[in-house]
Order: sequence, then structure tokens, then C-alpha cells
Amino acid sequence: MSIKVGINGYGTIGKRIADAISKFKEFKIIGIVKTKPDYAAYIALNKGYNIYTLPRNTDLFREKGIEVSGTIEDLLREADLVIDATPGGYGAKYKELYLKYNVPAIFQGGEKPGIAEISFNAICNYEETIGKKYVRVVSCNTTGLSRIICLLNEEFGVRKVRATIVRRGADPKEDKRGPINSIKLDPPSIPSHHALDVKTIIPWLDIETVAVAVPTTLAHLHVVRIYLKQSVSRDRVIEALSKTKRIMFIDANKTNINSTAKLVEYMRDLGRYRYDFPENIVWLDSLKVSSDEVLIIQAIHQESIVIPENIDAVKAMFNLESDKWKAVKETDEVLELIGGVL
Amino acid sequence: MSIKVGINGYGTIGKRIADAISKFKEFKIIGIVKTKPDYAAYIALNKGYNIYTLPRNTDLFREKGIEVSGTIEDLLREADLVIDATPGGYGAKYKELYLKYNVPAIFQGGEKPGIAEISFNAICNYEETIGKKYVRVVSCNTTGLSRIICLLNEEFGVRKVRATIVRRGADPKEDKRGPINSIKLDPPSIPSHHALDVKTIIPWLDIETVAVAVPTTLAHLHVVRIYLKQSVSRDRVIEALSKTKRIMFIDANKTNINSTAKLVEYMRDLGRYRYDFPENIVWLDSLKVSSDEVLIIQAIHQESIVIPENIDAVKAMFNLESDKWKAVKETDEVLELIGGVL
Repeated sequence: MSIKVGINGYGTIGKRIADAISKFKEFKIIGIVKTKPDYAAYIALNKGYNIYTLPRNTDLFREKGIEVSGTIEDLLREADLVIDATPGGYGAKYKELYLKYNVPAIFQGGEKPGIAEISFNAICNYEETIGKKYVRVVSCNTTGLSRIICLLNEEFGVRKVRATIVRRGADPKEDKRGPINSIKLDPPSIPSHHALDVKTIIPWLDIETVAVAVPTTLAHLHVVRIYLKQSVSRDRVIEALSKTKRIMFIDANKTNINSTAKLVEYMRDLGRYRYDFPENIVWLDSLKVSSDEVLIIQAIHQESIVIPENIDAVKAMFNLESDKWKAVKETDEVLELIGGVL
Repeated sequence: MSIKVGINGYGTIGKRIADAISKFKEFKIIGIVKTKPDYAAYIALNKGYNIYTLPRNTDLFREKGIEVSGTIEDLLREADLVIDATPGGYGAKYKELYLKYNVPAIFQGGEKPGIAEISFNAICNYEETIGKKYVRVVSCNTTGLSRIICLLNEEFGVRKVRATIVRRGADPKEDKRGPINSIKLDPPSIPSHHALDVKTIIPWLDIETVAVAVPTTLAHLHVVRIYLKQSVSRDRVIEALSKTKRIMFIDANKTNINSTAKLVEYMRDLGRYRYDFPENIVWLDSLKVSSDEVLIIQAIHQESIVIPENIDAVKAMFNLESDKWKAVKETDEVLELIGGVL
């Protein structure tokens, strides 16, 4: 018997979660919720997803000849789980509805931590999430940071983290956001919300983050300095990070991939769907270890990085697998993550 | 009697040095060297600068009706000092000519350190530069870093510096450079040349820099963590940085200037020539001091930041002023730097 999943929101994250969920035999998508009858609705129908919408928007879809299977409440009546991928802040409003129909829910990082029982990253706190009913998968930057911090913490103990996050200004499809010729302090005050968000997962951590937004759409870039509780060799750091396919290494000296643009071109050439890369892309050239100080520069694909963690979250909530690493490895295999060194 | 200055190169830096030099009664510009008869030649003539060129290019200027006063060798025969502002690497070639005519020279940061007797930043090593004949003024990013490091080192002692430099991808006038939609590791290997360049001025410093280039033209942005030899208060750090008008503070919370774009708009509104800001622009919002750890985020205007230091370099070479702070203060007054808090 499979878990019946409804997905509320079919934007950047929602459509990717739907595609990922479809690959797992334990899950069945019973429908997605869309509010507007735009091109993505046709794509959803072509992929075989039933479309649900808000009662007041049903006619909008019918006018365009798009078949609607019912309202969001119809969907919630049937669902074993709803994955909320609505724009940041909307999840809090929808939660009332999820509670009304007593449906467990996964929220995304755009929601405040208090919306869920736990903020989630598989490598950091899979076990604590087992059996939880309301879970928040943290945002792209927080996921990218949490993965490497928890991998190194598990092996060596982490003392302190100092990171600079160079954010993409907008997603590829967003044509009304900026900046278009500026470096924006996002925000000027310290720390950026990322440090606080990482602390929802690793509360004891001494972490400070600075974020700036720049005119590019492809990916974020993190410059992360992690201070360990012991001196280690570079090889051991690489080994610790290689424990999961969610970390992929790139050698710019060998491949000439020294930018997010070339990285995306590589993913396109690989034939990856939508050129997504849910792996942290860590440059080997800049991976520097000086006694207890580790420098990591990584690209984080804002559109797809949280997808594996959304799958892991379902597994934990329904206790489909009690062993963290088994859960993570199976997710990565089904989603065809690569890992290793390019 | 004033010092007769020739300026070789009339691009981004050269034209600004010419304008700055013109403001000092101790100096007289006897000519600038241009290789191409483009729009900047007309501007130079309008400003009253004599144009010199390469022997083989004299006809190019005459064909366009641009009056040329002679060749670069004619200029060097008359000059007491040449300021080389040719593109990076060209200074090394021209140095033979400067030696031939026994003319002291100032080179820019695009040249290798070995070209000069000393790499120069006024706040760091003015006294050591007194009487030198060949001096290299370090590049924009290195100047921006050296100023704050030496100010804090003078007051508290600096132990270690870790900086991330978010570079503008191109200057405003450069229309064939990129990136246009990418974050480029510049370079992927660690450290970027900036750390090595700072060490030409502060050899004993434990400094590591990471540089990325992004699609913007307005200014660089530095995220700098400076570790002091003692714990200090935030007020004392601000006081130490306020010692010179080359540091200007901005309060984004008060002014809403939270990006390089808004900063440039402010400089335009101030009526600054070419909207230049030769000051390090330090955001107060992000100036965080935790015991011995200082976080500074600053914007560095790549086109104009080295101009005050070029003036200081002349003063030191000709020993016009033996006291560093007197020299720096007079330069800043004549160039109308603002400093203080916006």
C-alpha cells in the first residue's frame, strides 16, 4: 500500500517534488494544487497529475478548458500527507486547513520554524524526525550549509562556522526581480537569517553568515570556513564529505569548470532534467585544510537542492526506514544523484 | 618649483590621477601619453593636458586633427616623475624607457611587485617609501584591504585576516567582458592573488582571500574578518577606522543604502565628479566585533580608490612631507574626501 501524497503549490519547488515523489514506489501522487491556470497546468496534466484548486478559482481553469479534479479540501480528504510548496508565508495560512483534515504536512524553508515540530535536514536530524507529523525542510542555502556542517561534525566535531553566501538575485523564471547591476547586502545586518536557520537544526553551533545578492540566476555560491574540534588532513575531510552522493566535487584545474555558468552547461550536457543539480558542488581547487580550519567553496542550486530532503522527510515521518544512511542512500539512488569527483 | 609629472596611460586610472595631480600646487602635469586617438584624447586636450604618444602612432593623431606635443621619449626627457597607468603588464615594458631617461616612476597594482623597490599603501608603509625611486601602488582590492588592516594593526595588532571579495565583473566602460549571468571563482584556487598582494605590504600577516567575480560594474564588495591580538569594543574599532577620511561609514538602517547601486546613486546626487568614491565604504550595520574578531563589509570603488595613494606616493618619493598622517590628511583635504558617517 502506498502513501497518498498531495502537493500544494506547483512552482519551482512543487513541480520538482512531484517529479521526485513519482519515482518512488512507496508514494502515490493523488494530486497537485494550483491556483492559476498557466502553462504549468498543462505540463502537470501531461505528466498525469490531477489538478486541484481553490473553490473560487475553479471557473478560471474551466474557462481555459483545463480539467480540475476538485478543490484543495477534496484533495486533503484523500491525502495521507500534504507537501506544502506554496510561496513563503502561505504555508502558515494553509496549515489551518491541514489541521482541519488532520493531514500530516511537510513545509518548506520559506515558513517560520514554529510552523512545524522540527526543522529538518536528513544528515543532521533524520532520527529525531521519525514519527513527526509536521516537518519543515529548511531552505536551499540552509540545506547546503547543514549538509557539509553535519557531515564534518559527525566525523570531527565542528566548533565554529563563518560563511559568506553570494546569492543568485532571482530564479531563471523570475523576470521582475533584481538586482541587475549591483551587489546588495541581503541584509546589511549581521547575521543573515541563514545562520539562525542553521541553528534550527544545529542549535549549539557558533555560526555567523553574511549574505549578498548579485545579478545572476543560476545558483548560489557559498564561501564557508568551518573550524573543527581537532586538526585533520585534507584527505580525511574529503573522505568525510564523500560519505554521501549529495556532495559532488569538481576539479576546475582539470575540467575548467570555474563558474556557475560552466557548471550549468555541464549539467545540460549530462542531460539532467531541467539541468538540476541537487548535490552541493564543492570545488576541490579551493578545498583548503589548515590544521582545524576548513575552507569550502560550493555552488548550491536553489531550485533543486531541497528535493532529496523532502523525500527523506516523508520517509522519516512515516518511519519507512529507521536508519538515516539507508534512507539517504536509497533517496539518492532513485533520484540518480552522482556524487564523487568530476 | 613644482615637480614635473608625466602620466603614461590615460584610461580608467590614468585620467583620474591626472585630475588629482592637477589639484596640487606642488605638482605640474607636463603631459599625458595616449596610444589611441579616441574620445579621451579630446577630453585631455580640453582639460589642458599636452598629449604625447608613441612615435609610430603620431600620424594616427594628426589624421584626426589631434595636436600631439611629441613622443613619450620627449616627455620623459622633461619629466621629474612618470606615473605609469598603462594596462597591467605594460609597465614592465615601459620601465626600460624610464630607466633610460633616469626618471623615477610610480607603477600600478597590475604590475608584478618586483617592478618597484616597494609596494605601497600610505597607511601601511609611507615612511619606508620616503626617497624611493620606483614605487608600486597596489591594486584597488589590495588598497581597500590594506587600509583597514593597517589602521586596526596600528591600534590593536592584527593576527589573522580572512576575506571574501565579491568582484565587479567589468568596469562601466568595458563592454566586452563578463560574466553576464554567472558567479565565477576568480580563481578557484586559494588564496586569490589579493592575499599575496597584501603581503607585499604586510609580509608577516596570516591572510587568506577568496575572490569571485559577478555580473556588475559598480564596485567590489569585501566581507573581511580581522582577528586582533586583543579583545576590543566595537566603539574602539570605529574610532580606529575613523582616523582617516579614507574610511566612510554608512548606516543602511537609517539611509536605506544597502547596495552598491544605491551607493553610486548617492555619490551621483552628491555631485561627485564621475560619481567616484575613493573612500572605503564600510557598513555600520554589519560592523560586528566579538572579542578579538572584527567583521567588516565594505564597498571598494575599483576606478578611484587608488588615487589618493598615488598622490601620497609622490609625496613620499620626493620627501615633500615626512609625517605619514600629515601627508595623508593633506591629500584627503585637497581631493575632498568626506569620511565620517553617512
